[in-house]
Amino acid sequence: MKHERKNFADRLWAAVEAKHTAAVVGIDPHLDLLPSEYDDARDLRLARSIRAKRMGDFCCALIDVVAPLVPAVKPQSAFFEALGADGAVQWERVLLHARERSLLVIGDVKRGDIQSTARAYAAAFLEGAGDQSGAVCDAVTLSPFLGGDSIEPFLEVCARTNSGLFILVRTSNPGSSDFQRHGSPELSFQIAERVARWGERLIGECGLSAVGAVVGATHAGELADFRARMPRSLFLLPGYGAQGASAGELGAAFVRGLQGALVNSSRGISCAYKEERYSALPWREAARSATVAMIADLASIDGSS
Amino acid sequence: MKHERKNFADRLWAAVEAKHTAAVVGIDPHLDLLPSEYDDARDLRLARSIRAKRMGDFCCALIDVVAPLVPAVKPQSAFFEALGADGAVQWERVLLHARERSLLVIGDVKRGDIQSTARAYAAAFLEGAGDQSGAVCDAVTLSPFLGGDSIEPFLEVCARTNSGLFILVRTSNPGSSDFQRHGSPELSFQIAERVARWGERLIGECGLSAVGAVVGATHAGELADFRARMPRSLFLLPGYGAQGASAGELGAAFVRGLQGALVNSSRGISCAYKEERYSALPWREAARSATVAMIADLASIDGSS
Repeated sequence: MKHERKNFADRLWAAVEAKHTAAVVGIDPHLDLLPSEYDDARDLRLARSIRAKRMGDFCCALIDVVAPLVPAVKPQSAFFEALGADGAVQWERVLLHARERSLLVIGDVKRGDIQSTARAYAAAFLEGAGDQSGAVCDAVTLSPFLGGDSIEPFLEVCARTNSGLFILVRTSNPGSSDFQRHGSPELSFQIAERVARWGERLIGECGLSAVGAVVGATHAGELADFRARMPRSLFLLPGYGAQGASAGELGAAFVRGLQGALVNSSRGISCAYKEERYSALPWREAARSATVAMIADLASIDGSS
Repeated sequence: MKHERKNFADRLWAAVEAKHTAAVVGIDPHLDLLPSEYDDARDLRLARSIRAKRMGDFCCALIDVVAPLVPAVKPQSAFFEALGADGAVQWERVLLHARERSLLVIGDVKRGDIQSTARAYAAAFLEGAGDQSGAVCDAVTLSPFLGGDSIEPFLEVCARTNSGLFILVRTSNPGSSDFQRHGSPELSFQIAERVARWGERLIGECGLSAVGAVVGATHAGELADFRARMPRSLFLLPGYGAQGASAGELGAAFVRGLQGALVNSSRGISCAYKEERYSALPWREAARSATVAMIADLASIDGSS
């Protein structure tokens, strides 16, 4: 029974321990970037359900490639929503497939809404979409913009189902400075302090909380500042690889060895076949090689802050 | 052809003119709050597809009640997502139904993500979810938390399809002050200034922009400040009725007569049958009466700022 499972932070700790890596693979099935094997997914002459099915086929194949290597995957809901109701069918299929492969699933949904609406989102993504299929995420990303009462329903559901949250604190994109750096102390630091407080009631046996933070790996110089404000929060670090950050800069985000933070790569893995160094390989081999290379790169990290 | 239609601000202006009201009805099908006629929607013994269908039936019936009275409806995606892929089917059905009833559709989705992902969301909600069904919104709500590059793809799609945006500037919930008031000037004012700038390239013949702002009606005392910072932006005002604001306080949001702002009521309409004063009425009559009462209340507004 999913409700008897352990705190998300403990489950993640065990999974990182088992796979010896903090690498997470993002499942961002942008139709234009799929390997040619999946040309059907972008063929507008085909029914949307068929196109969505092929997109889902790709996601499941990618999951099969990385499942032996990493503790978690992070599907991005937007690319499923782009195919409407047919994409939603594939979203559920992909969540189930990843869970069958014993991967933790971090739903990258970045939702944020008023309390009654937040309850509906929490039910949708963490409790199961109105059925018993098990197509749920182990954790989701959330936007904190609406404030504490928009997060509260998710905290309640996390306590009940031992799910996790990664709250946007500082995103990896260039525009993140537009509003996230506003004020003094800057908004991101204020959010970080709230994330730490929200997490206090969901601390696992490992000492970390199921309430984590998204902090862009592109802001490597600030990771120590964020870690100081959120000593017990899991960090999810997007922006590694394609967006520019390297492993050597990320140590401050970790709390012990490879624990306390996850490093995500999306296109760096799924689009590896487009890179020169992997261009002789079929896409699956390219993705596997890129994942192995990422894991080797991250192995040099030794968090001990 | 949808791409030949006029600027969203002009379409909204004409619709408000035609219906003589700035009232918008929110379509928030919270299963626990549906009339007893729709008990099947919450009967967990039934297949999720059947439950979702009944939820969709309610939404379509509500749309039929309010379509002669108001210019637009605002479906809230969370309540559809709560029923997973079956809910997504109903989301598309409800969008189509509203458009068939000649209502403008504001998708309350509050998305906000990095650029490549924002492109997928813009395609999903404004260009059509990978098919030609026409199940699109005329406008969507967006969160600005990730900054300018997260909004840019939506501006491009709006220019191409004459769609509109309502960007969260100050939300109606109590927690909105947690982060939106951060800094000096407060974050919401900084966002307001950016919204005004983003809107400059999408100004319609009516003089207003297709890039609007969500400002909670619960912050009535600040509406004049926000209007001063966003003189040409459409305002979407949630928080009327159930959340506490009254029409007399909202005048500063409008630019001429009833133009320039929309006032949303969700539960105040769909749950009117639960109110004492309408308790003798079937739910449809209660919703109609509540809509008529809201329109009468708003008629006293005469924006002339």
